[in-house]
This record gives sequence, structure tokens and C-alpha cells, in this order.
Amino acid sequence: MGEKNIRVGLVGVTGYSGMEMLRLLNGHPYMSLTRVTSRQQAGQPLKNLFPYVQGLKCADLAVSTPNTDDLAENCDLVFLAVPHGAAMNLGARLLQAGLKVVDLSADFRLREASVYEEWYNLKHEQTACLKQAVYGLPELYFEKIKAASLIANPGCYPTSVIMALAPALRMDLVEREGIIVDSKSGATGAGRSTRQANLFCEVHDNFRAYNLGRHRHTPEIEQELSLISAQKMTISFNTHLLPTNRGILSTCYMRLKKQFSQTEINAMYTDAYADFPWVRVLPAGILPETRWVRGSMFCDLGLVKDERTGGLTIVSAIDNLCRGASGQALANANLMFKLPIDAGLDSISLVP
Amino acid sequence: MGEKNIRVGLVGVTGYSGMEMLRLLNGHPYMSLTRVTSRQQAGQPLKNLFPYVQGLKCADLAVSTPNTDDLAENCDLVFLAVPHGAAMNLGARLLQAGLKVVDLSADFRLREASVYEEWYNLKHEQTACLKQAVYGLPELYFEKIKAASLIANPGCYPTSVIMALAPALRMDLVEREGIIVDSKSGATGAGRSTRQANLFCEVHDNFRAYNLGRHRHTPEIEQELSLISAQKMTISFNTHLLPTNRGILSTCYMRLKKQFSQTEINAMYTDAYADFPWVRVLPAGILPETRWVRGSMFCDLGLVKDERTGGLTIVSAIDNLCRGASGQALANANLMFKLPIDAGLDSISLVP
Amino acid sequence: MGEKNIRVGLVGVTGYSGMEMLRLLNGHPYMSLTRVTSRQQAGQPLKNLFPYVQGLKCADLAVSTPNTDDLAENCDLVFLAVPHGAAMNLGARLLQAGLKVVDLSADFRLREASVYEEWYNLKHEQTACLKQAVYGLPELYFEKIKAASLIANPGCYPTSVIMALAPALRMDLVEREGIIVDSKSGATGAGRSTRQANLFCEVHDNFRAYNLGRHRHTPEIEQELSLISAQKMTISFNTHLLPTNRGILSTCYMRLKKQFSQTEINAMYTDAYADFPWVRVLPAGILPETRWVRGSMFCDLGLVKDERTGGLTIVSAIDNLCRGASGQALANANLMFKLPIDAGLDSISLVP
Amino acid sequence: MGEKNIRVGLVGVTGYSGMEMLRLLNGHPYMSLTRVTSRQQAGQPLKNLFPYVQGLKCADLAVSTPNTDDLAENCDLVFLAVPHGAAMNLGARLLQAGLKVVDLSADFRLREASVYEEWYNLKHEQTACLKQAVYGLPELYFEKIKAASLIANPGCYPTSVIMALAPALRMDLVEREGIIVDSKSGATGAGRSTRQANLFCEVHDNFRAYNLGRHRHTPEIEQELSLISAQKMTISFNTHLLPTNRGILSTCYMRLKKQFSQTEINAMYTDAYADFPWVRVLPAGILPETRWVRGSMFCDLGLVKDERTGGLTIVSAIDNLCRGASGQALANANLMFKLPIDAGLDSISLVP
Repeated sequence: MGEKNIRVGLVGVTGYSGMEMLRLLNGHPYMSLTRVTSRQQAGQPLKNLFPYVQGLKCADLAVSTPNTDDLAENCDLVFLAVPHGAAMNLGARLLQAGLKVVDLSADFRLREASVYEEWYNLKHEQTACLKQAVYGLPELYFEKIKAASLIANPGCYPTSVIMALAPALRMDLVEREGIIVDSKSGATGAGRSTRQANLFCEVHDNFRAYNLGRHRHTPEIEQELSLISAQKMTISFNTHLLPTNRGILSTCYMRLKKQFSQTEINAMYTDAYADFPWVRVLPAGILPETRWVRGSMFCDLGLVKDERTGGLTIVSAIDNLCRGASGQALANANLMFKLPIDAGLDSISLVP
Repeated sequence: MGEKNIRVGLVGVTGYSGMEMLRLLNGHPYMSLTRVTSRQQAGQPLKNLFPYVQGLKCADLAVSTPNTDDLAENCDLVFLAVPHGAAMNLGARLLQAGLKVVDLSADFRLREASVYEEWYNLKHEQTACLKQAVYGLPELYFEKIKAASLIANPGCYPTSVIMALAPALRMDLVEREGIIVDSKSGATGAGRSTRQANLFCEVHDNFRAYNLGRHRHTPEIEQELSLISAQKMTISFNTHLLPTNRGILSTCYMRLKKQFSQTEINAMYTDAYADFPWVRVLPAGILPETRWVRGSMFCDLGLVKDERTGGLTIVSAIDNLCRGASGQALANANLMFKLPIDAGLDSISLVP
Repeated sequence: MGEKNIRVGLVGVTGYSGMEMLRLLNGHPYMSLTRVTSRQQAGQPLKNLFPYVQGLKCADLAVSTPNTDDLAENCDLVFLAVPHGAAMNLGARLLQAGLKVVDLSADFRLREASVYEEWYNLKHEQTACLKQAVYGLPELYFEKIKAASLIANPGCYPTSVIMALAPALRMDLVEREGIIVDSKSGATGAGRSTRQANLFCEVHDNFRAYNLGRHRHTPEIEQELSLISAQKMTISFNTHLLPTNRGILSTCYMRLKKQFSQTEINAMYTDAYADFPWVRVLPAGILPETRWVRGSMFCDLGLVKDERTGGLTIVSAIDNLCRGASGQALANANLMFKLPIDAGLDSISLVP
Repeated sequence: MGEKNIRVGLVGVTGYSGMEMLRLLNGHPYMSLTRVTSRQQAGQPLKNLFPYVQGLKCADLAVSTPNTDDLAENCDLVFLAVPHGAAMNLGARLLQAGLKVVDLSADFRLREASVYEEWYNLKHEQTACLKQAVYGLPELYFEKIKAASLIANPGCYPTSVIMALAPALRMDLVEREGIIVDSKSGATGAGRSTRQANLFCEVHDNFRAYNLGRHRHTPEIEQELSLISAQKMTISFNTHLLPTNRGILSTCYMRLKKQFSQTEINAMYTDAYADFPWVRVLPAGILPETRWVRGSMFCDLGLVKDERTGGLTIVSAIDNLCRGASGQALANANLMFKLPIDAGLDSISLVP
């Protein structure tokens, strides 16, 4: 296996994360897709499933049923873009076969199996792998990711929230009690399953909250923030559905511990992310918009000191499919294979 | 002037509030439109301005330049659907001429002229009228509205927020410190002025925050909540722009003072609004959606007790143009003229 | 049975046509809903199924399984809002039981069973009823509808197209060969079934053609145009999917037989629809927009003489759910029961 | 001037074409942006104007007022992304100064100045340049473009229409009389000027026709089709506004001269574009969707033989900003500088 010719398998090509993976891998200089799988759609070339890939490198690749031996033989790296529960056993087998694995599901994100089982209402069958798994947020775990064989790719919401809160907690700028996060996600976040609530006419020209205070990404956020804070954190995490395709915007409400100025806060955040060009701390007075990150790896942060209430409000915007899923998965894979983190990850947003 | 044949003037017909007023008045059993005004568009029949009113009662009404004497002679009631600043003097003159006035702008909402001047950066030239003005939220000021000559019609955001918070504060269920409101509004809330930020391609498939912690509706909300709480309230009020036409959804975060159950909270809210059928307290587990109130006077409330954090989260949804502006203005006018509050206010939502 | 207290059954309440029927019947002065049915959702009150009907008259009505005897006993009139194939036998039984029936499906629209069977690929089991059925387009069959017991409610596309073409053909203004219709429909037209192609993220910010030249509404359009023209008509009918909830806009291309002026054409169309206020012939230079008819019974027509090519282009816009389905069904029912055609049909559009 | 280090000026950076140019040039391997101009916004870095370019190569480039000498000194190539009328004189001066020019406006597209003056109602002041200008549709004028100094970049609609019709006319498959084109464009096509008709709430959840039979792109389409057909062509060209950001879909109606089979037609089109991988002739039964070309250079064609009417319907989809404007401009520039046509033109669509 040469580093420059990495054979990639994509397990679960039919959902939005799988489709985004196809988009990103098409332009990757060192990776080539050798297997794409789907239980329902096996047996046809990708271009039948997705007419819009006609003319791309992957167009004639045949969709196959996922099979450990076949993947092990033909891939150096596998992305698992399947629902939680469906990833853990396959992931473990591929690891044993010596492959590197990036799991886009929740199966390896929570360090405590008991927390997983409580929130996902499902027995964890590969607890041995949990220790091995590295939480794939490059801004937090850059070095560990480079050494990892199994990446637990972060959830879309947690990516947007942790990026917003981590520096404030690490630098002890804000109270740790009473943090409230109000997140809004585009409809790709709900996946491509055919539920009535996801129909165009149920989502278009509409806005709604859902799962207030009990979204499954809550324990993942709390786990990472607790590690940063070195104390157990409880946050109020609340989710809403936007009538857009892509994009998460999280508005995070904190109380400042002491009276830093707006300028100081911006400077501290800019420093905190100085080594990570994908994080853009916007100038004071400018607030993120989801379109500004559409199709890109950027995480845009807007910081607002509220003089009247003593609050610090941080707005964070990412593309949930790219930075919040497949793009981040690819960045992690790049690190695992000692490639530049941005190989194949063209960072330009599509505006408008 | 018979109560059954009320002559109505609409000052400012070209904006979205004016257009909504046309829609609602077309079906009103006791009111008829005699004057519609616009400085820019005077001199043509309404149907030239709005081809979609062809066939409606108002189609051939000529748009005129606003003129106090003309309005006083031909109207019993005037709705002012003009920007703040433009309403105060005209409103005062019409009052003096003996008309009843419903002002949809912010000019008479704030009881202290100094607060108005601070937030709107404009001198208040009719402070004498402020005492006379009644804040037109029927669920709070039903009897006062009936006796009023001048109504300060509430802002769209304040309507959604005050309806959500008033019972909790009145019944002392929640802490008065640290309340956070995260509101999202459809683009009609930004008005019909031709700014680049309001173009389709700047709003569509996009989501953004704006005016965090410093929206002009803040003092209006705080004024009313302070009166209810009998103490000065400061809230964190934060606004976002949705890619929808209509609809405001406010997610309001409070901390419970004691451990009421979800069932108790729902019962208390249902009781609080028992006399007001436009307020719909949804069953526990159901959360409001903006489409469910589209085109209607409903204010839908969803109550969520967050067991993990001790929080009470209330989601409130209204149609910003109907309940949040013109519909509420008409309800107030109905009360002023001793008509049934819902005359002309067909309450059915357009779904989908 | 008094005309003023008509008991109505709605078979198939869960789709968009059923939901629109609920909206319209809520405000009807002479009809009251006594039965709403659904095979999947039977056994619960409507408000559980549709939280947004809380507070409306129908909120507590229990959803039941459709049953001929039960409907016959409790209804004077039944609307069938079920897919084609599912309506024909139930419709026939209800007719036999003496009820009046408005069928919103295609089952009774085509006078020749063989044409139905060819296009719908389904055996017609109630051919005896076809003679009895009246095609429910009030502008064409006003008197026949008043005498009917069974209404074949027109399809949404055919309503928009026939209204646009009928006068030109009747007055022999245009060539009968080579007529091309390019229609675009909002996504409610695709129904509420949970197919992947109807998901928000597949429709939003997208536009596509489908079923070019072979949409099932073709024979219905040709049947009615042939009757008007007294000769067999073949048209090219082509459909597209819009990322909107409601609305059909059909652009119809014809060639003028002789050189009428734009003014003459507008006058002829205005005359042709002089007795039908729901049809609005827009002034020359103004073209219809789907929002102008949203939620209403209007059919807006824009006429354009193309001097360069000798063509006559007619643009027709309707609300596919109201004028194109449930509203038209209700208008037909009003006529059958000798009520004003517009009873319960508030004609105001919701703009924006 | 080395081929590998081409200095590029962009005149008119504030509109959607200018923004798209920024996106595409950011990733170009051989071109670097040295000047960006705007009369209104001169004097600030691009990142102030467009916060979303923070972190890109162009972020700190200062916006300047367009100046011939300055451009001539600092650029080898200039893209003119200004309205028609504003391009002709500047273009002529830059040519004289020895630069290569790609004009995205209509100023050099029509070979006859009289036709330009008739349709654009404006005197052409640089008729001498018209002979020099090459119409920049690579599939038609590949070799001429390579030798050109001045490119008239095609209009967005003409690109979609000419690509659809050219092979049928060249191969004499269809009648030349009576061709009808029904085109639909996303709202970026209306530009970024602040007109009320372009506001979000006027376009969203709406659809309308405009300029039927008299759109300014008509003579451009007719000019190119006439050259292909070697006879003067008149077509009926009709435009509609979609509530989407990007995308044009043109449905083109022709009559077949003889009874080719669907398979034959697809084969002939596939052959016709065999050398041009950006044109994707979709398999029979598959129709283009605007999302499938979003952000890309693809022109997708769907061919439908209508057996009932003897018609041939061709559906063509492009991204109006990329293939229909800035992307095509860049492809032309690549050819002029002997670079691979797809340099910097990443062809992957953003789906969803």
C-alpha cells in the first residue's frame, strides 16, 4: 500500500453522507474508490443510481453488498456511512483485518458504552473498540488522529457546538452552569429515509423545533466539553429543522466570568484557532451565515458580548454534510495516512 | 357612524402589513375600506399596484397621498402601517380629529419616551399621546383595548415572546434572571424595502442571526414582562432570519423555581389562556410549527420541561403578518368598536 | 335533509386534498362534516393526526374506517379524496344508497372506459356510472352539475389547461394542430406519499421535467378539448415539478388563425368568462403568478400575442389544491345542493 | 507573460457573476487575480465586501475603481462582469492595450449592430470590435476561441438552448419552423440589483412567466441557430422565474422530420458531443434536473420522442452562473491561453 494510491471503500453510498463522500473523493489526489456498497441497491453501476455522476470517475463502479472479506481485500481504508447500530460490528471486523476505518455513525463516539446504550437504546457489541477509537475533531485531537486506526467521526451538531464552546471553556471565560445551545439544521441532517415528516411539503416554508433537551447528540457534546473543562458538564441542547438543504447554525448562550471586552474575546478566539485555517473567527459585528460555508470545511464563528446581560453569545455555522460529516471524515483519513489534511478538500463555498 | 358600517382608512398600503390588511378587510362583515394611501404610488387604483386584488372589493379604490383632513372626513378608523417615526404625528392628528387609530409601528408602544428615543435613535414628538395609547395585546389588555382610542399594536416578536412568558412570570413558575429568548422570523418581517440583504438569492437556502442582544423589540418585551412581574426585567433577546415568507418561532429558555411536573405546567398554561381560543397550548410532546399558524390568529405554545437541567423551554409560533401585525390590529379595532373580536378574522391556517 | 344542514363525509382525510377539504369545510355555512375516514389512521380524533386543527370544529371528530353503510346513514354528500382505483366501487355504492358523490380521483373523468384502462392500466369496474358522471368544471358544465348526483372532479392540470384553451378553441381563434402545453406544478401535486423523490432535499432548490408527453392527465384534457372543438384533438402535454407547495402554472402555445390584435383577444376572453368571476383575465402586459391565486378559487389568465411568430401564448395559474382539487369539489357540491357556488369558498389569496 | 502565471482582472466583482468568478479563480492553477473592480465599493479589501472569502487567496485584494491604464499594466486577461452597455468601450480599450478580454455582457454577442440596437435599445459604440469577437461557446467555436482576443461570452439562456438544438438542426432531424422553447431560470439570473420583484418574499413559493416572446436573449439564439441551419431561423423563446438560486432548465419542442427511433436520436446526440465531456446526453427515460449540474460546467440533455404527436422534446439543464456565465468565461480564457479547457473548473456538482 503506497500512501499515494489509497484504495477506499464506502459502505452506505445511498444516503446524503454517502453522496457527499462521492463528491469529495472524486477530486482526491491520492485516494481512489474501489468499493461502494448498499444492501438495497447492489448490482448496478453508480450512474444508474445517481444519474448526476455520469462522467465522473466513479460512474461505472458497481454497487455491491457490503462484505468484510471483499472490503478487506480491496481497500486500505473504509468509510462507514451507515446508521448507528449498523456500523459497530462491521467496523470491528475491518479493523481486525488491518484496515483503517472512519465511522460516520455514532457507534464509537461515546467513551462509555453505558451512555451509548442509554441514549441510543441499543446494546453496544464492540466495547473493546471504544478505547481504540479517536474522536475525529482535528482541532481537538490532531495528533491522536494521525496515530489512529479507528475514527469516530463527530456528529454534525457536536462539531458546530464544540468548536464554538471549546476555547471559552478551556480559557475559563464563562460560567460552566447554565449553558444553552439553540441549534438549527438543514433537512439533509434528517437523512434520506422516506418519512412523511421529511417530505418537501412538510418542510418547505416551515420551521419547527424537535427533540428539545433530548437530542442524541447531547451526550457527545457533554463528553467532549467535560474533558475540556475537567469537570462534568451538563448543557441544554435544543434542535430545530430549517427549510434548507445544508447548514447548521448553533447559537450558544453563556455568561462571562469577568468583563472581557469584545476585542479581547475576538483576539482570544483568533489565537485559539490560529493553527486551524478552516475555523474563521469573523470580525466583531459580522455574524455567520450558513450559505457562507456551503460545500466547504469552514466553521465560521461570530462572537457577541451582550453588555446588557453580561452574556457571551457565540454563533457557529458549518455545512453539516461536508464539515459535519463526510468532509471531516476525509480530513481524518488524510491525517491517518499522513497526507495534508486538506487533500481533496477544496475549501471554497458555493455562494449563492 | 353606525357600528355596522365602519369606514376604514389604511395608511401605508404598499408594505406587507398593508397587503395583509387588505386581505383581512376584504372579508370583514362590518368594516369597509374607504381610503388607502401611499406617498409613492398615489393616483392609481389598487388593482394596478396589486394585480392579485382584481375581483376583490378593494380593486378599484384609488391610492391617495395620506392627508389628515381627507382621512378625518372619510374614515372612522385608521390603521397606520408605516415605519416608526412616520406614524406618531399623523396618529396624533387623527386622534384629535376624533378618529380611532391603530398604529402598527413602534411609535406608541414604549411608555417612556426616553426608552423610545434611546432604542430608535429618534425624538418622540407626541409624548402626550403615550399615556393614551393602549398596548394592543388582547390577552393582556382586553378591557383597556375596548375603551381605547389609540392602540399601539404590538411588534411581531414581542407578541410571540410575551404570550409564551407571561403566564410563567405571573404565576411565578420561573426565575426572573437569565431568561434567554432565541427567535426566528420569516423574511416578511424584514419588510418590503429593497435592500440587497432581502433579495431572494441572499435569503434562500440560507440562515443567519442578526442584531443579537440589541433588537429594537427588546425594550417592548422587557416593558411588558416587567409590568407582569412587578419588577424590572432584563432578558436576552436574539433574532434570526428564516428562509420562509411568514412565521415567527421563539424558543424561550427559563429555569423552573420548583419542580412542577410537565402535566402541571401544561394545565396551568391551559387555564391561563382558557378564555382566549386563539392561544393553543399543545399537548405535551407536540411542538409548534410555523405552518400550523400560517394566515391565522393562532399563537401555538409547546411546553417542555427539561428534567436534566431543570429548565422550562417554551416554544411559541405565530404568523408574524397576521397575529403579529395586521390581524392583531384588526382584532383590536374590533374590540374598540364593540364587535366580536374575531369578526373578519377567519382562523383557519393554510396547510400546506 | 334540509339544504341548510348538509351532512358531509370525507373519505381519505390524510392526503393534501383531504387536508384542504378540512380547511374549506371548517368555514362552510351550510355543510357540516360528520365522517372523516382513513384506513391507516382510524380510531383517533382528527386533532391527534393534525395538531393544527386544534380549536377548529372538526378537531374532535373521530377518524373511522370507510364503510358504505355508515357513510350512507350519516351523510348526504361524500367527497372521495382517495387515489384512482380506490374510488370507483365505493362511489358506485354510495350513489346507489342515494347520496351525492364528488370524486376527486380520476375514476369517473374519462367517458370511455377503454381510455381509462389504457392510461391508468387498470380495469374500470363501474362503467355504468360513467354516463351518470358529470365532469365538474363549473365554467363548462354549470347546469349539468346542478342536476348531477356524481361529479368527476377535474384533475389539477386539466383545470388549468382547459380554462386557458377552451375559449380560443370555441371561438376558433387558433389552429387545432400542434398545440403545446408546458405545465409546472408545486409539490403538493405529487401527493403525500412517502417516496424518496418527494423528500425536501430532493425537491428544494431544484427543478425538473417528468412524464413528458405521457402524463395521465393528457386524455382528460384531450377529451374536453375535443368536445369543445367538435373534432378529435391531440395535444402535446408536458409536466414539470416546482419547488413550491401549491400552484400550477401552464404556458400554452398556439398559433393564431388570423391576426387578431392583443386588445381583441383580451376582449374576447373577458367576454367568454364574464359570468365567472373566479376567472380573471389579466390586463395585457400582466402575467399570472402562482402566489396570486394561493389558497383561492381564482384561475388567472395572461394572454400574449407574439407578433414575431404569429403565436398566441396563454399562461394560466391556479392553486392546484384549492381550485385544482378540493375547492372545485366544494363548488360542485354547492351547485348540486342549489347553494351559491361560492359558499364557504373565501376567494382571497394569501400573498405573500 | 508566462502561460503559467496569468494575471487576471475582474471588472465588476459585486454581482453574482463576479462572485462566481471569485469562486472559480480561487482554485485555478495558472491564473491569479490581480485586480477586482467596482465603482460603488472601491477602497476596501474584498473580505469586507464578502465576509465568506476570509481565508481565500483573494481576501485581502483591494477593490478598485475600473481604470484602463491600471488594468492594462497589471493584467494579461480581463473578465468584464458588468451590465450590457458598460462593457463595450472598456473592452475596446483593453483590446487596444493588448490584453485578452472575455466579456460576460451582451455587448459583443450580436454580429449585427443593428440587431443589438433594436433589442437593447442602445447605440453600439464599438462596432469595429464586433468582427473580432468570437462567440464563446466551446462546443461550437473551439478553434476560433483559441485564436481569439475578444470573447463574447454567451448568455445563460442561449447556452442552454443552443446546446439542446444545435445537433438536431445540424443533422436536419427537425422542422425549422415552429420551434418553441420554454425556459425556466433560477433567480440569480435576474442579477443582484435591488428591485422589489427580486425580494425573497416576492419570489419564494412562487412561479411566474416574464418577457414571453420578447426576451433579449432571443436574437442571440436565433443568430447562432441560423448559422447552423444556413437559413434565417425564428423561434418562440419564453422565460420563467424559478424560486431557486441557480439553474436553467429549457424544454425545447420540435417536430421530427422523419421517424427516427428514440435509440437513434440518443445515439446521434451522443456522437455529436463525443468530444465534449461537459455535455452529458442522459440515457433514454432519464430527464435532467437543475441540481445535477449545480456548481458545475455540465450541460445535461434529456431527449424524448413523443410518439403520439411526432414531436421531439429536448430538455437541457445548466448552472446559469457557472456554465451559463463565469465558468464558461473561464473555459474560454483557458482556451485563449492554450491551457486545458477545464483548468480550475472542477466539474463536480453539489448534490444536494
